[in-house]
Amino acid sequence: MRVTRYTDYGLRVLMYLAVQDGRRCTIRQISDAYGISRNHLMKVVQQLAALGYVEAVRGVGGGISLARSPGRIRIGTVVVAMEPDLELVECMRPEGKCVISASCRLTGILGDALQAFIDALDQSTLADLVEPSAADGLRLLLKLDPVGGPGDASSA
Amino acid sequence: MRVTRYTDYGLRVLMYLAVQDGRRCTIRQISDAYGISRNHLMKVVQQLAALGYVEAVRGVGGGISLARSPGRIRIGTVVVAMEPDLELVECMRPEGKCVISASCRLTGILGDALQAFIDALDQSTLADLVEPSAADGLRLLLKLDPVGGPGDASSA
Repeated sequence: MRVTRYTDYGLRVLMYLAVQDGRRCTIRQISDAYGISRNHLMKVVQQLAALGYVEAVRGVGGGISLARSPGRIRIGTVVVAMEPDLELVECMRPEGKCVISASCRLTGILGDALQAFIDALDQSTLADLVEPSAADGLRLLLKLDPVGGPGDASSA
Repeated sequence: MRVTRYTDYGLRVLMYLAVQDGRRCTIRQISDAYGISRNHLMKVVQQLAALGYVEAVRGVGGGISLARSPGRIRIGTVVVAMEPDLELVECMRPEGKCVISASCRLTGILGDALQAFIDALDQSTLADLVEPSAADGLRLLLKLDPVGGPGDASSA
């Protein structure tokens, strides 16, 4: 059982943007920092923008930034929105053909467990992931300058 | 996010055996009833036997049956034992290379949510899946004769 790479990258983009404290950055900066494919990230960022998590400004001084404060971004809600498929077993999918679906209790039990998973994630917001004690470490690992420092993307 | 087909089939085998009320059956009967690959099922049954859920008897009158009562088989425990991979995101895997792992709070949050998922599943046992009101429907859909009827596998 895995979360797709798509959702994984979506969460990483949000964390990257959250430690920028409002500064804009480019997709290339994010893909370079994580060492992951820029093409993949383009689609991920498009989706995050369509969902209202990310805001893109074109042109000189442009780039992407969070469209709302980290405290208003719940992790479970992001996972549900990004994950292309939460149909854990065959009977949950439109093409499912399991012969016992009509009398099977497992579907309900798995559905409840999935909801418990999402509820647990929703107890945390993006702000919890980048609270001060974590944010400094993240900025260091992502090779970001401290907020307001010389590498400020909005002045580059 | 999906449970592997392997685990899905494992749960189906257990449900099939549970509505047999102790009668032995063959892998072919199970694969015919569900319309799924016998080769896949062989591996699944081998693992269920290795885990102590299923008992196999060779020779004439042989076959497979549950090795313990359905009330002693917790669904979350089966999923954990059968699922080859519960490493939801890259940083949870040995080959993971995410650069922010050292300062990332997401790993812990996802781990807690996964535990909530498993705990929710563990609230149900195989006996809950085949309680009388469900078992009759399951036997009908699996084309099984009522317990003790003429199609009793142990007398075939």
